[in-house]
Amino acid sequence: MSREEETTISETMRASVLRGIEDIVVERRPVPQPGPYEVLIEVRAVGTCGSDTHYLEHGRIGEHVVEAPLVLGHEASGVVVARGARVTRLEPGQRVSLEPGVPCFTCSQCRAGRYNLCPGMRFFATPPVDGAFCEYVTLHEEFAHPVPETLSDEAAALCEPLSVGVWACRKARVGPASRVLVTGAGPIGLVAAQTARAFGAREVLVSDVKPHRLELAAELAATATLDVGRTPLGQSGFEPDVLLECSGFPPAINEAVRTVSRAGRVVLVGMGGDEIPLPLSHVQSREIELTGTFRYANTWPTAIDLAASGTVDLDRLVTHRFGLEEVERALTVSAREDTAVKAIVLPHE
Amino acid sequence: MSREEETTISETMRASVLRGIEDIVVERRPVPQPGPYEVLIEVRAVGTCGSDTHYLEHGRIGEHVVEAPLVLGHEASGVVVARGARVTRLEPGQRVSLEPGVPCFTCSQCRAGRYNLCPGMRFFATPPVDGAFCEYVTLHEEFAHPVPETLSDEAAALCEPLSVGVWACRKARVGPASRVLVTGAGPIGLVAAQTARAFGAREVLVSDVKPHRLELAAELAATATLDVGRTPLGQSGFEPDVLLECSGFPPAINEAVRTVSRAGRVVLVGMGGDEIPLPLSHVQSREIELTGTFRYANTWPTAIDLAASGTVDLDRLVTHRFGLEEVERALTVSAREDTAVKAIVLPHE
Amino acid sequence: MSREEETTISETMRASVLRGIEDIVVERRPVPQPGPYEVLIEVRAVGTCGSDTHYLEHGRIGEHVVEAPLVLGHEASGVVVARGARVTRLEPGQRVSLEPGVPCFTCSQCRAGRYNLCPGMRFFATPPVDGAFCEYVTLHEEFAHPVPETLSDEAAALCEPLSVGVWACRKARVGPASRVLVTGAGPIGLVAAQTARAFGAREVLVSDVKPHRLELAAELAATATLDVGRTPLGQSGFEPDVLLECSGFPPAINEAVRTVSRAGRVVLVGMGGDEIPLPLSHVQSREIELTGTFRYANTWPTAIDLAASGTVDLDRLVTHRFGLEEVERALTVSAREDTAVKAIVLPHE
Amino acid sequence: MSREEETTISETMRASVLRGIEDIVVERRPVPQPGPYEVLIEVRAVGTCGSDTHYLEHGRIGEHVVEAPLVLGHEASGVVVARGARVTRLEPGQRVSLEPGVPCFTCSQCRAGRYNLCPGMRFFATPPVDGAFCEYVTLHEEFAHPVPETLSDEAAALCEPLSVGVWACRKARVGPASRVLVTGAGPIGLVAAQTARAFGAREVLVSDVKPHRLELAAELAATATLDVGRTPLGQSGFEPDVLLECSGFPPAINEAVRTVSRAGRVVLVGMGGDEIPLPLSHVQSREIELTGTFRYANTWPTAIDLAASGTVDLDRLVTHRFGLEEVERALTVSAREDTAVKAIVLPHE
Repeated sequence: MSREEETTISETMRASVLRGIEDIVVERRPVPQPGPYEVLIEVRAVGTCGSDTHYLEHGRIGEHVVEAPLVLGHEASGVVVARGARVTRLEPGQRVSLEPGVPCFTCSQCRAGRYNLCPGMRFFATPPVDGAFCEYVTLHEEFAHPVPETLSDEAAALCEPLSVGVWACRKARVGPASRVLVTGAGPIGLVAAQTARAFGAREVLVSDVKPHRLELAAELAATATLDVGRTPLGQSGFEPDVLLECSGFPPAINEAVRTVSRAGRVVLVGMGGDEIPLPLSHVQSREIELTGTFRYANTWPTAIDLAASGTVDLDRLVTHRFGLEEVERALTVSAREDTAVKAIVLPHE
Repeated sequence: MSREEETTISETMRASVLRGIEDIVVERRPVPQPGPYEVLIEVRAVGTCGSDTHYLEHGRIGEHVVEAPLVLGHEASGVVVARGARVTRLEPGQRVSLEPGVPCFTCSQCRAGRYNLCPGMRFFATPPVDGAFCEYVTLHEEFAHPVPETLSDEAAALCEPLSVGVWACRKARVGPASRVLVTGAGPIGLVAAQTARAFGAREVLVSDVKPHRLELAAELAATATLDVGRTPLGQSGFEPDVLLECSGFPPAINEAVRTVSRAGRVVLVGMGGDEIPLPLSHVQSREIELTGTFRYANTWPTAIDLAASGTVDLDRLVTHRFGLEEVERALTVSAREDTAVKAIVLPHE
Repeated sequence: MSREEETTISETMRASVLRGIEDIVVERRPVPQPGPYEVLIEVRAVGTCGSDTHYLEHGRIGEHVVEAPLVLGHEASGVVVARGARVTRLEPGQRVSLEPGVPCFTCSQCRAGRYNLCPGMRFFATPPVDGAFCEYVTLHEEFAHPVPETLSDEAAALCEPLSVGVWACRKARVGPASRVLVTGAGPIGLVAAQTARAFGAREVLVSDVKPHRLELAAELAATATLDVGRTPLGQSGFEPDVLLECSGFPPAINEAVRTVSRAGRVVLVGMGGDEIPLPLSHVQSREIELTGTFRYANTWPTAIDLAASGTVDLDRLVTHRFGLEEVERALTVSAREDTAVKAIVLPHE
Repeated sequence: MSREEETTISETMRASVLRGIEDIVVERRPVPQPGPYEVLIEVRAVGTCGSDTHYLEHGRIGEHVVEAPLVLGHEASGVVVARGARVTRLEPGQRVSLEPGVPCFTCSQCRAGRYNLCPGMRFFATPPVDGAFCEYVTLHEEFAHPVPETLSDEAAALCEPLSVGVWACRKARVGPASRVLVTGAGPIGLVAAQTARAFGAREVLVSDVKPHRLELAAELAATATLDVGRTPLGQSGFEPDVLLECSGFPPAINEAVRTVSRAGRVVLVGMGGDEIPLPLSHVQSREIELTGTFRYANTWPTAIDLAASGTVDLDRLVTHRFGLEEVERALTVSAREDTAVKAIVLPHE
């Protein structure tokens, strides 16, 4: 960091720290120092995600166990305020959307372009790596993606879930000929549906059991919606060639796969437990391709384009805003309020 | 048919007919007449397949129910003896390997090159379409594939199961970098393993519970074998990037999928029941692609090349031979004799 | 044809026939009879294409020589008025867009899904196959694609050039991340640009030397335009990852290829003479993929969707309309009137 | 470097340095120090390449100009003798094949898995980066690929040209169904032909004008050869679906492209000048895909497997060996001796 820059940044910051199950407090911590290829970012907005809530309530996700105090939050935007000695692409003042996982860059997965599968990945808010519910974070400059002025801080933060949708649509090879079924109209389903339209999909049916979520899906992207609490998918008559599974609900997955057409693609976006019964004879006789997404790779430029051009509406997903002291409320608002879609944490407000 | 040709062919033939469960008899039937684009083929050799045995013992496979007398057999070779008026590619005397399913050619699946998924497919030995356990059959000329003299009648017949292996290796994108796990060393596993080597795979591990099958696998293609009756797959330390599932045994499928590496491919070749529990979190976190094969499309030229060049050894699979009167014995020899691999029916002997 | 249908169709029709170079006359010809899988179509609208004009002026295109009287016209729409005995999908009264080339369906190219490369293709207005500048044509039912009421007759006809654009965008793998350069703003360039946007392309630069065409491109689809009469492409600073070459002008092709980015794709849509000098060292050092389109395969459903949904505006391309007696004028209007884009022939008006 | 290691390595080494056109001398230079992720390698064998010869004779290749003394040589093998502090995969004593270009790892090309297209690539023997005609080099540990004992030093060095063949076959999607034409039977053509066979190609026709090279091609890999000094390609009747262009001779390229079948692939491996006339109407009417290779990415594991398993014979290519003082002779032996295929420089002999 150069001297001028240092003068404007205090030495400590506030950070929301998970100390144990349902135990989150705001602490003062040192402002981190950027490494040679890193920038220091003042965090502006951070989305809350189901995985943050899961860490709060269970202290773990699968093999990832919170064994030391952890800062949650991985859907973030901010402004560059300082930079390491070898940073060349970014300057202080640049607004950025944060891609929250930095791989090792040199292993065989990274060299093959699959850096999301890098065993050495360091991902925000995944033990032992801290996340973004705090005032400042550092990040490799190539993972701090510049955003245009037209994109709000909150939308810039939500380029992270949008990247999940972009990655899912790429895996599913969504295009102008596609008829897409999106199961689940939560935040991920809503971005997946919008992304599918942006990829040109001719039909996007969104299913859920909550009518107000289906209304939002219809408003944002769906060409049709289905309340599967009233009409089972199998009776809908819809035969998608792409299924983007965003519910994570095993019975829904099984039923949804059975609707997929010959040579169709199934992409599991939501998490649904370790082992799930699947209709494999259907998969086999129709030669359906099934895969899952694990985070994303090389999606940010597309996500930013889609959001900045207005093709995808991210601001519309934000229903609640909280300060850094209210992270626990932010992470549990969905359970309390049925109409909640996406809660945002604003660390500096 | 031209006049000269007619003179040499009798008007009736012997056919092995399935009249009901475990009720097969040889009947005399009219020799079929080729349509304008069809050839009449004198059947030379017909392989027996598990699906034939299943029809014999259960009278059905899934939705396909034997409701009228049915000729079984769909792995066949023969000699063209007559041809329809518009046939141009084949002449009497040509030895051929039979691709036993003829699609409608004009539907959207056919036009997209996925004729194996054609809803109008007419497939040998699938009700109500008769198969090849008889002396003569007719076939569209484009599905009667010429074979060189170097290929035996039996190997020409077994280009059908070899096509299953070719199709599986294509779906799995097997190539020189591949480490392949083949689960199950039955006839399909044995051709799949050989095909994987022909596609350049660097390592092919074949697993089974029968030592003599593993010995044959090692002789023909496997770079290593595993007796999973002694050593569970999960303890083998083998991490394939391609799994060709040829056992159809649900617990084996589940365990095998768990060994597959990041960005690996799983192709379900064997049938394993309608619904199977799968380790979807593994599929998702490693972004494994899973699909199944349903027959094959555009595989015969490759299969014939592989067999004719000696790259794949099909003759070595034949362990038993029977006449047309012995079809029931041919279809049950595997249950009686542990060392049986592939039984062949020779309709004219 | 059933009896009721026959009563409403006269036995002869008017057809515009090319008898020699610059020699087109309207003749009376028998109304054709549909084969068993064909429908009889009353032609409603037919677009004019540069290839029709080329046959008129030169009597040939490459190896295709007009040796007998020929009906031109291959961009057509109409209404089904009768059908062959085995037609099942279409009924009289159905409005359709005509896919004007019917392949043999059974050769190796067809079976592989590449029916556009079928050596036995019979294509409208390509010697010796007649085209659609007449009152009635017959067509295989699978190539007469139903269109919704919202699509005009003229737009339904122009689904043919739109298919060219769809095919080009598929070959080029255009998607939301794409920056596309379209060289040439004639009818094909204008549909290619619109299709690229429909496939999600973030940027579409259209280049031409005619300002009014560039204006139309900007109105319909282009995110930017370039008058290459004023500013050479190489000075534009635009580095596309996709080049859709629609000018057919060799120097433009060469210059355009030099702008393409690393790992970019070049699709030659326009015809540009037999042999063209290309910057192969650029192709090689950037690993650019270059290919050409030859007609299209499996594009109509997508083209109809794009046009019917308003994503692509085909009606806006129509600048001139002519009757069947005026085909020669229709085919030469572009040479006479600078503002002409697409002339339509209306056989029944 | 640890202390023990330092003791065995002298502080200076001999290096063959290109000081200007046709001016190569052996100088003493400091042994380089490995960076934290690098290993120090004692060079065992280095292949000579046409690009080395071109630098010797012209002082440049295209935009790459030799402006300071340069060590040539980029096809190298060796033994690890020391390592940087953060190296984890390799230990002293490990024999390795050198991948001679290290990218920046973090740019958009690298992150997409196309590190060969990285603008920040530092490639051996490309100004201003020194090559391997010397006693010691340093290299990022991920680019020093371990080789088994069965692989000779010379074969380990020649995994570099073999990688060129692997990359070309991947780009061309060579597989068991492929009929491949390899134009040019120099070292690259000979490895390309062998690689195509290793990828399963059913037919590999190699063309050249030198009979002894064609003999070697036939011995190593070709299923057929063609002396194009006697029989023009166009008269051979061979219609490949894959053309691997390894001659770099423009008229040969043009003629070869004209033989390629429908939907075929052309990969330009050899360099052939900046601009070449190509039969684009043939490319377009057959929808041929044409691209070029620029070095390679992620090929070494496959190349080492192919060589170590004996599938590809690299030792057979070596016809001449030279010491470090004889680099100039090594680089010009092909011009002097017609039977030269590959000359190797042995820095320690």
